[in-house]
Amino acid sequence: MTATAGRRHPPTPHAAAGVTLPSALPQGFSAAATAAGIRSGPGDDLLLIAADAPAAAAGVFTRNRFAAAPITLSRSHLEASGGWARALLINAGAANAATGEAGRADALRSMAAVAAAVGCPPEEVLANSTGVIGRRLPIERMVAAIPTLAASLARDRVEAAARAIMTTDTAPKAAERRIAAADGGEISIVGIAKGAGMIHPDMATMIAVVLCDAAVPPAGLQASLWNAVERSFHRISIDGDTSTNDAVFALASGRRGEAARAAELDAAIADLCLDLARMIAADGEGATRLLEVEVRGAATPQEAREAARTIGSSLLVRTAVAGGDPNWGRIVAALGRSGAAFDPHAVSISANGLPLFAAGGPAGGDPAALAAAFASPVVSLAVDLAAGGHADRFLTCDLTGEYCRINGDYTS
Amino acid sequence: MTATAGRRHPPTPHAAAGVTLPSALPQGFSAAATAAGIRSGPGDDLLLIAADAPAAAAGVFTRNRFAAAPITLSRSHLEASGGWARALLINAGAANAATGEAGRADALRSMAAVAAAVGCPPEEVLANSTGVIGRRLPIERMVAAIPTLAASLARDRVEAAARAIMTTDTAPKAAERRIAAADGGEISIVGIAKGAGMIHPDMATMIAVVLCDAAVPPAGLQASLWNAVERSFHRISIDGDTSTNDAVFALASGRRGEAARAAELDAAIADLCLDLARMIAADGEGATRLLEVEVRGAATPQEAREAARTIGSSLLVRTAVAGGDPNWGRIVAALGRSGAAFDPHAVSISANGLPLFAAGGPAGGDPAALAAAFASPVVSLAVDLAAGGHADRFLTCDLTGEYCRINGDYTS
Repeated sequence: MTATAGRRHPPTPHAAAGVTLPSALPQGFSAAATAAGIRSGPGDDLLLIAADAPAAAAGVFTRNRFAAAPITLSRSHLEASGGWARALLINAGAANAATGEAGRADALRSMAAVAAAVGCPPEEVLANSTGVIGRRLPIERMVAAIPTLAASLARDRVEAAARAIMTTDTAPKAAERRIAAADGGEISIVGIAKGAGMIHPDMATMIAVVLCDAAVPPAGLQASLWNAVERSFHRISIDGDTSTNDAVFALASGRRGEAARAAELDAAIADLCLDLARMIAADGEGATRLLEVEVRGAATPQEAREAARTIGSSLLVRTAVAGGDPNWGRIVAALGRSGAAFDPHAVSISANGLPLFAAGGPAGGDPAALAAAFASPVVSLAVDLAAGGHADRFLTCDLTGEYCRINGDYTS
Repeated sequence: MTATAGRRHPPTPHAAAGVTLPSALPQGFSAAATAAGIRSGPGDDLLLIAADAPAAAAGVFTRNRFAAAPITLSRSHLEASGGWARALLINAGAANAATGEAGRADALRSMAAVAAAVGCPPEEVLANSTGVIGRRLPIERMVAAIPTLAASLARDRVEAAARAIMTTDTAPKAAERRIAAADGGEISIVGIAKGAGMIHPDMATMIAVVLCDAAVPPAGLQASLWNAVERSFHRISIDGDTSTNDAVFALASGRRGEAARAAELDAAIADLCLDLARMIAADGEGATRLLEVEVRGAATPQEAREAARTIGSSLLVRTAVAGGDPNWGRIVAALGRSGAAFDPHAVSISANGLPLFAAGGPAGGDPAALAAAFASPVVSLAVDLAAGGHADRFLTCDLTGEYCRINGDYTS
């Protein structure tokens, strides 16, 4: 009757924990960032990533009906090019969403300027924006900055790239994976991301870019990216809002040839995205703790996902975690309304490996140890529904008064 | 191109605004409350409502799989009695949820004690509990208090009844409607409710009781209650959590005979429940404002409901309302992910009758007036999707740092 859970996750790369960022982009890619005066405050706000030659390209985009101009244009460009791209332009400070025809024209102008600067057709340029919804891009300043950006591209710009897309993120987010290439060499996969931050508090936008020097056809890259996103970015939430600008891009230069095992590339991309997703969740606005919810033993994959999502997005669970309170009542109440089928008396829950709930009541774990678990930087809940063989996870952060302050206390 | 919205709701009965409570229960009912020592702190925590004779009874109960013992027993009793009840016992301070067989036995004992005290079979007793999940009832103290309660029943106990079920509610919640009876007299419908409060921060529980002296068969009362709940309590949320103990009860004594028009009774019960729902939403933990979202012009009823729910449960919208910020970007972003179909350029949104968003961008309303609307005690958003003829609403409150403090800052 003890909780069956207990598997601990590998140490989580907390954004603020001073992780070492990758030193260089994969072969075939370079980047440059600059302060183009798009947002107020210090730091770069415009990032250009370029491929030396057309790279296989894939994207997963927001399904928000108010999708921003750069999102709809990037989607069209990927279709028009058949999944190849030479450049990706990302700005912070203005989302270029709900900006109508003028906003669309702005995005097209910026993409044309990039095409001219790197020497490729416009449909091989992708773009995204993050920042205030309804705010237009300062397009003249942006276009003026692009030739200089293109002239200063370099491979050792991972941190600069990750910093240029930050909004209220407290730290740059980047990670790397290496796998064997078919020719005996090594393939590098580097990802950068920005989290659910607000700029002059407005809209949470999640952006990630995954670059690799493997040779992989566009359709294969798109499949890998879908798989990775489904298991990572589609399993995180800071506040439940899918933004107008959410996007994950993947580019593969092919410079290091094919992976020794295709499945390994797939797994590495998924693993890298999970890393980035953890960084985003841990760096949610006002967050003091990462909350991971793992559900197993569900009757169906859908029920596993819903159970994890319902617990992880419960405001009551998230405020309890903020308070360092091992409040199993809130967890089982969220589980109970998730729609998942289970016998309440067969459910077991553990926190950081300590039994929390079993046989319909408290599992009899040491209260002091449980309190310490809930007060640690990573709180991992493992929920066994004992109703089947399906599992899923959800990543989020605690909900603090600081979140409300960041998003509520300002005068526009 | 101006916003088509503008209809204002009648003044909302804010819980803290000193509304006058009904002075007496409908004919055929009486109530008594006492401090039975179930929760810490001052005030009554045990309420008994009795009918002079078996009353038609109906209930709508939580669908949470961890439904509390009194919920499952009340459901069984309604089935066993064919929809008749003589008494309803409600306590605050312990939810009697996730308490296993012992908790079920406690609930049965308390119900048997009520049956003995009022002189009816046990299946004519209904019950509910609100408070900490996993905490057992102090059953000896409760059973000891019941005879005294039964001996002190009176009709003029609306406020005492409403107060006895409060947890972190800041004010008692009660309302009344009167309609014509078939015999030329008047039928009274009185409702009391408690909101999404936590006790020693634990579980949000919503409880409402609707009493009337109309003659209506159990099946008719159940249908009226379903209809009313669907349009009121199923359209509010403080934090998205459906509790283990949520319940709405309705009892009809029949003392004043049939309503002159059956549809009028139906409408009055629905209207009363909407009143109570508004009071609950306005008195959400940490709330400073009531937020009402009305969606019209949806292609389907489901899309109307989801659009209203998605906007009303967006943390970003709710924190913007807390900040008094007319942030239409967050509203359209929530609308865009709701799944409802619409042309983004045809959507219009108004706030307290002032145009906020139209033709894909700001509607050009006076910024100062809009800011004043968002800083008022009731913020009513009217969203026209211009995609069909269906409408729905959602009621909630702003999300403040105080909510997080109430639910996070404590040591158990």
